[in-house]
Amino acid sequence: MTEVLPNPCVIVARCPEGRPVPSDFALQPAQQPESGVEVEVLYLSIDPYLRGRLSGRHVTGAIAPGQPMESELIVRTVEDSVAGPAGTLARAFGPWQSKVRLPEQALNAIPDGLDPPSLALGVLGMPGLTAYAGVERILQPAPGQTLVVSAAAGPVGATVGQLGKAAGARVIGIVGSPEKADWLCEAAGFDGCIDRHAPLGDALDALCPEGIDMYFDNVGGAILQVVMERLALNARVALCGLMDQYNQAEVPPGPNPGLVIRARATMRGLVVYDHEDLRLRMEEELGGRIRDGSLAYREAVFEGLESAPTAFCRLMAGQTFGKTVVCLG
Amino acid sequence: MTEVLPNPCVIVARCPEGRPVPSDFALQPAQQPESGVEVEVLYLSIDPYLRGRLSGRHVTGAIAPGQPMESELIVRTVEDSVAGPAGTLARAFGPWQSKVRLPEQALNAIPDGLDPPSLALGVLGMPGLTAYAGVERILQPAPGQTLVVSAAAGPVGATVGQLGKAAGARVIGIVGSPEKADWLCEAAGFDGCIDRHAPLGDALDALCPEGIDMYFDNVGGAILQVVMERLALNARVALCGLMDQYNQAEVPPGPNPGLVIRARATMRGLVVYDHEDLRLRMEEELGGRIRDGSLAYREAVFEGLESAPTAFCRLMAGQTFGKTVVCLG
Repeated sequence: MTEVLPNPCVIVARCPEGRPVPSDFALQPAQQPESGVEVEVLYLSIDPYLRGRLSGRHVTGAIAPGQPMESELIVRTVEDSVAGPAGTLARAFGPWQSKVRLPEQALNAIPDGLDPPSLALGVLGMPGLTAYAGVERILQPAPGQTLVVSAAAGPVGATVGQLGKAAGARVIGIVGSPEKADWLCEAAGFDGCIDRHAPLGDALDALCPEGIDMYFDNVGGAILQVVMERLALNARVALCGLMDQYNQAEVPPGPNPGLVIRARATMRGLVVYDHEDLRLRMEEELGGRIRDGSLAYREAVFEGLESAPTAFCRLMAGQTFGKTVVCLG
Repeated sequence: MTEVLPNPCVIVARCPEGRPVPSDFALQPAQQPESGVEVEVLYLSIDPYLRGRLSGRHVTGAIAPGQPMESELIVRTVEDSVAGPAGTLARAFGPWQSKVRLPEQALNAIPDGLDPPSLALGVLGMPGLTAYAGVERILQPAPGQTLVVSAAAGPVGATVGQLGKAAGARVIGIVGSPEKADWLCEAAGFDGCIDRHAPLGDALDALCPEGIDMYFDNVGGAILQVVMERLALNARVALCGLMDQYNQAEVPPGPNPGLVIRARATMRGLVVYDHEDLRLRMEEELGGRIRDGSLAYREAVFEGLESAPTAFCRLMAGQTFGKTVVCLG
């Protein structure tokens, strides 16, 4: 990937087997649409669900070998458009490349004065909306109840936990490193954190002696099983992500339905695109909390288009901390 | 079991391995409490959840070897009590024996003039309430939507389906025999039935081409998996019974959570005891429909206390048709 290409884009070179590696991707000269608004791409959003798209197992459809990688972007228009005068910042789905033309209707304004603008990909973007919708529409925290969230240091998990705290819940995070646990307890106000590499059942028993009233699941797999064995009566479970199985070739089974019956639990699948109606409220509420310093967030920023495959691979290995973005600016 | 015992009761002789057999049970002389209201037992309720109790896997607790079998009963008091004058009919939990003393507060009046009184164990009893609560509080049928129910010829399943039809849904039953399928389509108004021994996925694809909006699950296991692969967007799933695994020693896994996410489905565990507040409405509504002939139901009546183990074993082999009761009258 050292050759300099005119306006290169990142494509899928082959479908990853298991955990993706950078050589699953390649740079190639981008095909440029002839119409649309010309934009410079400032940031790429790097998200776990993209691994599902590479396997053809995601609701938003497959990205096949030979096709450009695509995700949410922050762009700056270089010509006037319905989005505003040249220089307007917007969010849009599009390919991983530095300059591109996008259909005008694909451009969505981002809140004014956002610093850095990449927040519109993280805590004030899709992950923030995911968290907001899950807490508001599925978990519905009550004061004193116990909320557990997995992948808790990611932009969804950390926001879920802080929304739970604001509603008066006790919040326990499941994370991948002591550094993440420390940050959640110290900066984000979590009541406790568990390293997912430790014996999880024992740790949950110690931290959630009355059972788990709410679980926001970003991972599936063994963690979901162990949490569900400890649900309190009338528990709510938001099923959102499947980090534990995105890298697997076969879809594994899930928890026995008897665990749901025993707890009279409600489990609901959460897909953020169904909750666009909450976006303005989310931007207002979380934006206000960012301005007043009461909402903690982290970003893992990679520099340059060539780093995008590495950024994605490190995310999928649990080696990034916070919302992963690639800065092309 | 041919010896005549004074007031015998059915006890658990040993924990069944797999599908229960009559020799897992025995008759022995009953111990009689010294206090309580003396009653004659008219009917024993024979229910699948009892198998879970024998394995120690049911929310209502275990029944261990050496202990009397117990379930809901229809009794006639032989002395005056708070339940009413001698001769009052009531429903109560109690042991499988012909005469017993029960605590006064355990006696619950049954609707007047019920003929036969065993309906208060079936369509107007716990199974009826289970169906009513599941439809009202979880499935919430909308006209034109498709409802699938398993173990559909049982008292829960047949009632779920008929409540769905009354709400304007298309209703498909999954059953264990052609005889049951015929009865559901002809007497109970189901739109279609599938024999669970046939290739289920193909049959569901044919009968539910737009997917399954509501599923009332009495069985778990492979049937739950195949149904969940076909959920429509925003599907509701009531998890109620686990017939498929009651006879298994090990608790099997369940469907992958990705199926719930993809459909944005809501799955909820249903335990009838949480829904006692609906009982009067259920009795009124379903009782009215029985009187006007618009609600079909079936009973499988076994005669005599000695037949109770056989009745239970046949139920657990899928060989009974309708609400299984034992008549001691």
